[in-house]
Amino acid sequence: MKNHKLIQKWTNKQTSLNAWLSIPEAFSAEIMAHTGFDSITIDMQHGVNDYLKTVDMLRAINTTDTVTMVRVPWLDPAHIMKILDAGVNGIICPMINNKKEAQKLVEYSYYPPFGKRSFGPIRAKYVYEGNYAKVANESLLIIAMIETKEALDNLDEILSVDGIDAVYIGPADLSFNLGYEPKFDQEEPYVLEKIKYILKTAKKHNKFAGIHNASVEYALRMKNLGFDFVTVGSDANFIIKAASEVVSSFKNSKIEEGSSY
Amino acid sequence: MKNHKLIQKWTNKQTSLNAWLSIPEAFSAEIMAHTGFDSITIDMQHGVNDYLKTVDMLRAINTTDTVTMVRVPWLDPAHIMKILDAGVNGIICPMINNKKEAQKLVEYSYYPPFGKRSFGPIRAKYVYEGNYAKVANESLLIIAMIETKEALDNLDEILSVDGIDAVYIGPADLSFNLGYEPKFDQEEPYVLEKIKYILKTAKKHNKFAGIHNASVEYALRMKNLGFDFVTVGSDANFIIKAASEVVSSFKNSKIEEGSSY
Amino acid sequence: MKNHKLIQKWTNKQTSLNAWLSIPEAFSAEIMAHTGFDSITIDMQHGVNDYLKTVDMLRAINTTDTVTMVRVPWLDPAHIMKILDAGVNGIICPMINNKKEAQKLVEYSYYPPFGKRSFGPIRAKYVYEGNYAKVANESLLIIAMIETKEALDNLDEILSVDGIDAVYIGPADLSFNLGYEPKFDQEEPYVLEKIKYILKTAKKHNKFAGIHNASVEYALRMKNLGFDFVTVGSDANFIIKAASEVVSSFKNSKIEEGSSY
Amino acid sequence: MKNHKLIQKWTNKQTSLNAWLSIPEAFSAEIMAHTGFDSITIDMQHGVNDYLKTVDMLRAINTTDTVTMVRVPWLDPAHIMKILDAGVNGIICPMINNKKEAQKLVEYSYYPPFGKRSFGPIRAKYVYEGNYAKVANESLLIIAMIETKEALDNLDEILSVDGIDAVYIGPADLSFNLGYEPKFDQEEPYVLEKIKYILKTAKKHNKFAGIHNASVEYALRMKNLGFDFVTVGSDANFIIKAASEVVSSFKNSKIEEGSSY
Amino acid sequence: MKNHKLIQKWTNKQTSLNAWLSIPEAFSAEIMAHTGFDSITIDMQHGVNDYLKTVDMLRAINTTDTVTMVRVPWLDPAHIMKILDAGVNGIICPMINNKKEAQKLVEYSYYPPFGKRSFGPIRAKYVYEGNYAKVANESLLIIAMIETKEALDNLDEILSVDGIDAVYIGPADLSFNLGYEPKFDQEEPYVLEKIKYILKTAKKHNKFAGIHNASVEYALRMKNLGFDFVTVGSDANFIIKAASEVVSSFKNSKIEEGSSY
Amino acid sequence: MKNHKLIQKWTNKQTSLNAWLSIPEAFSAEIMAHTGFDSITIDMQHGVNDYLKTVDMLRAINTTDTVTMVRVPWLDPAHIMKILDAGVNGIICPMINNKKEAQKLVEYSYYPPFGKRSFGPIRAKYVYEGNYAKVANESLLIIAMIETKEALDNLDEILSVDGIDAVYIGPADLSFNLGYEPKFDQEEPYVLEKIKYILKTAKKHNKFAGIHNASVEYALRMKNLGFDFVTVGSDANFIIKAASEVVSSFKNSKIEEGSSY
Repeated sequence: MKNHKLIQKWTNKQTSLNAWLSIPEAFSAEIMAHTGFDSITIDMQHGVNDYLKTVDMLRAINTTDTVTMVRVPWLDPAHIMKILDAGVNGIICPMINNKKEAQKLVEYSYYPPFGKRSFGPIRAKYVYEGNYAKVANESLLIIAMIETKEALDNLDEILSVDGIDAVYIGPADLSFNLGYEPKFDQEEPYVLEKIKYILKTAKKHNKFAGIHNASVEYALRMKNLGFDFVTVGSDANFIIKAASEVVSSFKNSKIEEGSSY
Repeated sequence: MKNHKLIQKWTNKQTSLNAWLSIPEAFSAEIMAHTGFDSITIDMQHGVNDYLKTVDMLRAINTTDTVTMVRVPWLDPAHIMKILDAGVNGIICPMINNKKEAQKLVEYSYYPPFGKRSFGPIRAKYVYEGNYAKVANESLLIIAMIETKEALDNLDEILSVDGIDAVYIGPADLSFNLGYEPKFDQEEPYVLEKIKYILKTAKKHNKFAGIHNASVEYALRMKNLGFDFVTVGSDANFIIKAASEVVSSFKNSKIEEGSSY
Repeated sequence: MKNHKLIQKWTNKQTSLNAWLSIPEAFSAEIMAHTGFDSITIDMQHGVNDYLKTVDMLRAINTTDTVTMVRVPWLDPAHIMKILDAGVNGIICPMINNKKEAQKLVEYSYYPPFGKRSFGPIRAKYVYEGNYAKVANESLLIIAMIETKEALDNLDEILSVDGIDAVYIGPADLSFNLGYEPKFDQEEPYVLEKIKYILKTAKKHNKFAGIHNASVEYALRMKNLGFDFVTVGSDANFIIKAASEVVSSFKNSKIEEGSSY
Repeated sequence: MKNHKLIQKWTNKQTSLNAWLSIPEAFSAEIMAHTGFDSITIDMQHGVNDYLKTVDMLRAINTTDTVTMVRVPWLDPAHIMKILDAGVNGIICPMINNKKEAQKLVEYSYYPPFGKRSFGPIRAKYVYEGNYAKVANESLLIIAMIETKEALDNLDEILSVDGIDAVYIGPADLSFNLGYEPKFDQEEPYVLEKIKYILKTAKKHNKFAGIHNASVEYALRMKNLGFDFVTVGSDANFIIKAASEVVSSFKNSKIEEGSSY
Repeated sequence: MKNHKLIQKWTNKQTSLNAWLSIPEAFSAEIMAHTGFDSITIDMQHGVNDYLKTVDMLRAINTTDTVTMVRVPWLDPAHIMKILDAGVNGIICPMINNKKEAQKLVEYSYYPPFGKRSFGPIRAKYVYEGNYAKVANESLLIIAMIETKEALDNLDEILSVDGIDAVYIGPADLSFNLGYEPKFDQEEPYVLEKIKYILKTAKKHNKFAGIHNASVEYALRMKNLGFDFVTVGSDANFIIKAASEVVSSFKNSKIEEGSSY
Repeated sequence: MKNHKLIQKWTNKQTSLNAWLSIPEAFSAEIMAHTGFDSITIDMQHGVNDYLKTVDMLRAINTTDTVTMVRVPWLDPAHIMKILDAGVNGIICPMINNKKEAQKLVEYSYYPPFGKRSFGPIRAKYVYEGNYAKVANESLLIIAMIETKEALDNLDEILSVDGIDAVYIGPADLSFNLGYEPKFDQEEPYVLEKIKYILKTAKKHNKFAGIHNASVEYALRMKNLGFDFVTVGSDANFIIKAASEVVSSFKNSKIEEGSSY
């Protein structure tokens, strides 16, 4: 078992709660890190983040003991190696569709002789205790996203790749690619069936599995299904939700204006 | 009457809803601007904002028709003139404690001959139609914060200063300075009495009045009292609120783990 | 016909005027957006721009109703999808040299089932009305640059790819690749012939065509030839031009120094 | 005579040409620095610049041998000392209205025993050869802006302050404060008279004088009057001018659309 | 005794070692925070830092348990209150020259009723446990710099101000103001006498004392004299020192070039 | 022979000294540029740098006459072309493992007809005199890193590629890939043998060779072996080294505390 807080939790049958960051700013990341999530994932794919802001955000989260993850923009060695050097505890790579892509993800994420990651853990060496060159391969969480028909077709092969620790389901893309509206908390039976299939197949291969959700209710259902980690909401969506509630409850209020003045 | 959307609303006895920004990022500002507030105030005093980020945030808000305001860090001509040049629709100045300070606020905010603002509306000229030099003095909303004992003692003199359009109550500082815990949505009778006194005195001088709140409930009470504008929450607090709800409802859930898998 | 302001204009036989941004700053972008161009293209290939500055610049332009475009650095899914998520109205991709590359451009730019773009329109959802997942494929302008010998050889095949809306000629690269000095406003007959050939072939395939120019004079000739959109100058070049004129007319002035003092 | 390139030029009766920067970006500053101005002034008062961007811009200009100046936002010791530490060759301070303010400007700008500037030339030490502590007082150009009625009334007293090397006229503020429209290239006889009065008084006190202009034509008239340095335009205005010319000459073109295609 | 790690150390007669940051970047701050200093001071006066970079740097240091301090640019309420809100553990204010200035420093740094600091600990609330409004006044370290003749003349009065916890000597400015070359590790007997006088007077008033040094050797002498905290070097100077050693030892090497190849 | 300062030095049998930058800030780069290195390389692969910070750093170095280089993150046309446009004097590309990759490096780095670099030297045109389109191919230094077993196996083929000017050894990755601990200043005989083999093979192909080192001592040995350029340390490591020395010499000091006070 890897020396990773989440993996240890999952092995103990505890589902972890993950948060998502789309706003490119360390202060919002720091706020999020103080609200109690087990892990926080900075989204470099669809989030408005870039590399330097992500590093600032990692520092902000590292002022707490929350686990840090980054969803990288794409299966690209430059992105993956550079963000691992920045001292993240794990990465989520979008659109892993076949065995070859899963193997590349492993190749870019692990040091020799297992992989081909280049050595230069410029900030990572401060995040990990001990000799980073020695501990890295056994400490990082490498997660492949399953979100296309092609990935479903190749799921067993993808999951057979050593070094892939877990899969993560992006229900919006998965739904879209299966012909449904791209959304979270999907209720389409066909999509739900595929979600369960991915989970079951992951377990068959002794891999962990996570899924993105819009609501706690759905996340709890997913936890109940056996998912090891669930994401609920994001910094951006939390603002939208709480702000919209304020606006609508203020504007819909029935107290007559100025009545008591 | 000034040519200002909020003043026109207030004159029509409508209370406007204001939002507060503490996160130094244009994307969160843009999200907030799409949720329906009448105005948004960027807090350069206690917020984590600086000048250039504030300009980026103003642009983000200006992609909608939400009114923009800035709370400046202090009664300082450099800050005030520079932020007015950036094209904001109004400013809120903290800690106006006496007539002299109110006069300085007016002096820094208005063009000659009424004030001493230096001319150079580098971005403001794009925000306003017409000749900015001519329309500025009649278009900007200048608001003084009343939040100390000294200010209460000098309230009539402060409110007699021509060019001050409105007062804004910071209940945390006001409470602190009156010997109570610094907080919003204050229920201490003595503080509430002072809040009502400020409102009444503003109205006596034909000025408008606003107040900072933590909840819609309290804001509605303040609206009911006769306040012209009320602030509820902030980007940072919206994240805290919505994220904390997610964490606590997930962690307190009673669904047994893995039961149905 | 796509629901895109430029395409509608072009369909009405109106040539649109495009501007080019190389300076990584939202204020200069905002200035440019107020001068009257139909569209503005942020150059992420040769410009000094990066992703976060580009997002700031998009916001600046979105304070007006100018159409936004981005020239992406390369045919790379991470770049293309991320900039589309940022809410741009169209992209120009450099160095499309054959059918396969044109197909990849389409694949990265369109949602399923037509393409493979991943879903997460983090800022785009504020730029477009309606359900972005539904309107995106019919609203975005996807433009391939034709600027090499290989592209000329494969022009019919490139233009036969469904989803490519228009071609854009980079005369500097095209000239360079044809053995001439890399420059705009090219007068070399061989290059001009190729420019006309590209235009004609585009029209044959019912695609639109644009070209980069250094001067209004040349741009008008290109408009006259039938080009649907023409770019003239850039923020950087406008500074160089106007500043150089000031320096040279000041230094070459014949008024004797101090003569009348 | 101070060891300053501009002062040496002025002493030789040569009028120097100054440029103005309002865009907060080093690349535009670098472009400007390559167009041939004698000096470039970064405007921290009305420009969209802040301290860190100004330092980046100073580096950009220092890749050439153009003289660097900064207009500080206000007569504030923190601003003035910090920008001098950044390695600028001179400062222009707005709104110097009386002898006391002129003395403060000197106090903040010079090292002991002449002034009270705090020691810590963090970047300045790389800009100047020799021991900065020894050469600074004799190398920096300290300029006071004359732009109000009060300043005109106190002009002799202001100019009698040792350490003030030159005055700079802001015609927009001067006009505004004298009751006229705030503009450059002023033709109002009363304002022109005051401009000449400032120049003459500066010369009487053996100080140098400069003025801000919108056009080369007006700048040449000012040079002819005896001004030692003249500013023409700014990065922002150069973009506006050149871009507007392109837009209007394109849109007003009479070549019929598509006629020859 | 305040609840502050350094004060507790000093009370136990232990001299703490402080580092200085002049480079505006969180990564260098983070590196410094891992090298073992008791405290790190970000220099906003002479350093190339601004507010937002300072906040990023505070986060970087807060990934360790190093005490954070900021030297503010000047005795300015906006600067002081805003940096305290950012969650720093103490501030050093330059150029405190008399009792009134010391009182202002206290007024800006403490909450009512002791001072007039405005309430809004936007990030500070994450740095401190407990109710920040209650613990702040007893947790922050407020330090006045003594570095002018005027300050020496008023030393007893300055030190009699309640709320000033310690004094800090800037030997460069002190030397300069006493008529000597501005430098650290000063050996001039007159300056050394004044340094000892400041230390002795601080102790007489039961205040702590610190001093800036260039070398460990001098810092140890100062520790030996009784100083409670000593600063040695800075990030910028560490680069200069180590890089210069590399360059000179490489260039002065006597191994003949290419001799053994 | 190319018109490049380093190549001219190497041709004269002089070994140049290179520095390495990992901190994303122009001020530290500027400090480094004033310490006397022949060249400075900004590390975009393992350093905490991104594109815009790198451009700022290039400007900082360009205030001196130090040669600029960038290690690009990966063999990626977007990265390579964009950094060349930024005006760097040379690039180092990591992980060149076979002839095809070496050919791609050449293709991305040279203008037609030799390569396929796209034309748009937005900042480069200010760094080079003359017509950049004409001088670029003969002025840029293109360096391939040799750091894997595969590269060793293909070394002759890699070195036979025209346009590759030099090779650079990354001893950490090379060691790691050969089964040893990743470190600089390697003493493992097998690794040293491979280092000598790379040097010898480069010379056989009339290419230049450089190597990364941790100490001057090792760098001098490498110079003695015949390496044309050697890197020693980095900005980050210089801080670590000098700061750690201060901390340890202060903490290990035997002077008794407070003894003489």
